[in-house]
Amino acid sequence: MASDERADLRKIPGGVLASRGFRASGVSAGIKIAEGQLDIGLLVADAPCAAAGMFTTNLIQAAPVRYSRQVVERGSARAVVVNSGNANACTGSRGDHDAAVMAVAVEQTGQAPATEVLVASTGIIGQRLPMENVKSGIARAAAALGNTPEHDEQFARAIMTTDTKCKRAAFTFQLAGATCRLGGACKGSGMIAPNMATMLAFITTDAAIRPKALQPALRRAVERSFNRITVDGHTSTNDTVFILASGGAGNRELAADDDEKLVFQQALDAGCCSLAGQIVADGEGATRVVEIEVKGAASSIDALAAARAIANSPLVKAAVNGGDPNWGRVVSAAGYSGARLDPGRVELLINGLPACQHGRPAKPPQAKLAEQMAREHVKFTLDLGVGETSETVWTCDLSRDYVAINADYHT
Amino acid sequence: MASDERADLRKIPGGVLASRGFRASGVSAGIKIAEGQLDIGLLVADAPCAAAGMFTTNLIQAAPVRYSRQVVERGSARAVVVNSGNANACTGSRGDHDAAVMAVAVEQTGQAPATEVLVASTGIIGQRLPMENVKSGIARAAAALGNTPEHDEQFARAIMTTDTKCKRAAFTFQLAGATCRLGGACKGSGMIAPNMATMLAFITTDAAIRPKALQPALRRAVERSFNRITVDGHTSTNDTVFILASGGAGNRELAADDDEKLVFQQALDAGCCSLAGQIVADGEGATRVVEIEVKGAASSIDALAAARAIANSPLVKAAVNGGDPNWGRVVSAAGYSGARLDPGRVELLINGLPACQHGRPAKPPQAKLAEQMAREHVKFTLDLGVGETSETVWTCDLSRDYVAINADYHT
Repeated sequence: MASDERADLRKIPGGVLASRGFRASGVSAGIKIAEGQLDIGLLVADAPCAAAGMFTTNLIQAAPVRYSRQVVERGSARAVVVNSGNANACTGSRGDHDAAVMAVAVEQTGQAPATEVLVASTGIIGQRLPMENVKSGIARAAAALGNTPEHDEQFARAIMTTDTKCKRAAFTFQLAGATCRLGGACKGSGMIAPNMATMLAFITTDAAIRPKALQPALRRAVERSFNRITVDGHTSTNDTVFILASGGAGNRELAADDDEKLVFQQALDAGCCSLAGQIVADGEGATRVVEIEVKGAASSIDALAAARAIANSPLVKAAVNGGDPNWGRVVSAAGYSGARLDPGRVELLINGLPACQHGRPAKPPQAKLAEQMAREHVKFTLDLGVGETSETVWTCDLSRDYVAINADYHT
Repeated sequence: MASDERADLRKIPGGVLASRGFRASGVSAGIKIAEGQLDIGLLVADAPCAAAGMFTTNLIQAAPVRYSRQVVERGSARAVVVNSGNANACTGSRGDHDAAVMAVAVEQTGQAPATEVLVASTGIIGQRLPMENVKSGIARAAAALGNTPEHDEQFARAIMTTDTKCKRAAFTFQLAGATCRLGGACKGSGMIAPNMATMLAFITTDAAIRPKALQPALRRAVERSFNRITVDGHTSTNDTVFILASGGAGNRELAADDDEKLVFQQALDAGCCSLAGQIVADGEGATRVVEIEVKGAASSIDALAAARAIANSPLVKAAVNGGDPNWGRVVSAAGYSGARLDPGRVELLINGLPACQHGRPAKPPQAKLAEQMAREHVKFTLDLGVGETSETVWTCDLSRDYVAINADYHT
């Protein structure tokens, strides 16, 4: 998840409030079982923003996804309201009503009209939201809005479920002479798979950019970041990435055909990649990050298919957990992925050390391979031996704790 | 995995030696690390048999798979030699040579010409077989051949890797007035996925049947049994199912267009289904068997895609492990499977109890659903609400022990 420096990208502290023109809050509304945990987040812009969004590809889509899709289509939004602890998914027409009521509750606080409120939810599937708690929570969240570092962190904490870490990223970049900012917060730990996952990400920028330019930029950034990570191959019903662009930086507004758009794309890519990397590193029960680069593929589709088969193989992930250089599991996962490969030319490096060459064992000391497999960051570089294309996917290991978290999770 | 009774199928004890005309043995050759464990199995027919085989669909195929494919193409075989502890996969041309040497070693014992010896291996990928051990083991296995119940069991034990149970099945059936037998042994616990897995199955029958009738019968039986199970979605490099038909029962030899073939098919289906069911029940770390019936699908491909997505979801499997009726995970797995479904008409039963109706929560007491999820056999019946087709797939739960077994497995 490399970022380019041509945009003069600089990492800065904070999340959604790193951009000018936003306020945020996080409050406890009693949706989560554990008392006092933050579970309602509210993000409000000082003025209407250009807005874009990307949503789950799951055919079973949560009510807030259906609601927010309509808002995004209009290209403009002013607020995001999000709850954790309940996904409002598989809840039928009542769920649709509840998602709309969340937007109306924001309107009733005077912060934004309901048609300009994006809604997101994450948590258990198949239970109705406790709407009295949600409504009073939204009122309190509106009263608590602010733009201090504490507000930034409270919003990021309010969207967490099984996450163990608060995930934020922010950058400054130079765009047409103006200094712009881009910041975001995200959550996601389990039910994480290609084409997004139970992951929510909220990104702000104070760059001025038209909605018609913002949506394709977001699509491209998501494709290279959130769609390249997997924890367990299970695509969620609630995946959502929103971006709000306030224009507060004062740059000339970017249009879809603008050359300067590349600079903005670099900043957005960097933000999304940083957030996606934080999700994988905090995957449920994860102890290591695994980077899988597949090269020598006949096509991008093949390279991604092989990389994802490896990333989703419980056998590969358990081997990484055990620090065991069991490279046969990696190569055989590529073999059943559907990607074309030449069994006699397949090569695998583990953190740069050859494990398999010409489809046969390489000859590094086993102890050296084991040493690499026990590092915090394990990189597999697999050459399929048939083409020139490469793609990279990130995942984490599979630990006993993943099972414990998901076997003992309360419904 | 129901079997039909029209063939007058009767379950009998034993495995590969249930059929007349075979001898078997299992010996310890020092291929496995643990001393004294059986790791060479030998099965020999008194006379040449009609033979058929099915092999892994993984593009990375082990040397014994390449070797045995040629033998099967000739339609006739007289012996099977198999080792556990080493898969002889990703071993290049030396591996091909070693597989051929195993067949030659059987020929040298005088039991069968090398061209009539089927070879199979299972175990670690990417290491050369210790051929001196293998050759002396084969010689001892030939000397130890016999047809007692002990020989039957020793053969079945010699093919085990992480299996905790010896897996065998045998039936008698009536074919054109003759009493025939069909018996088999198999192994498989991890690296088990659709299109076969690190699973080996060896089936014998004393029915007389032509090779041209035997191969399609085996293909059909495998499609309905071994290709409908999954433990971890990881398709192995070594999957193999062999059948040898001795003709010792004295029935009129079955041809490909024979009406009586249906009776034989029923017996073969029953044998394969029994063995496949034993693999799932003994999946690595498994505590429960999960049966997933998807109905109301637009096509068989859709029904299987949905059933397999559910069966391979670590989140679903961990929920089953915890006895947690987290049905949202089941429904959402179907949602990302690629199968067509109607979100408003989706229905899910857990052991016959409605959990989700019309895409919304049903209203059974949560305690009753939890009770069903804690049973040894959990059946999900999912209606996609768009068609008339149904398919069933079997899997097991995902436990902390699965991770322990595969993180600590030695390379």
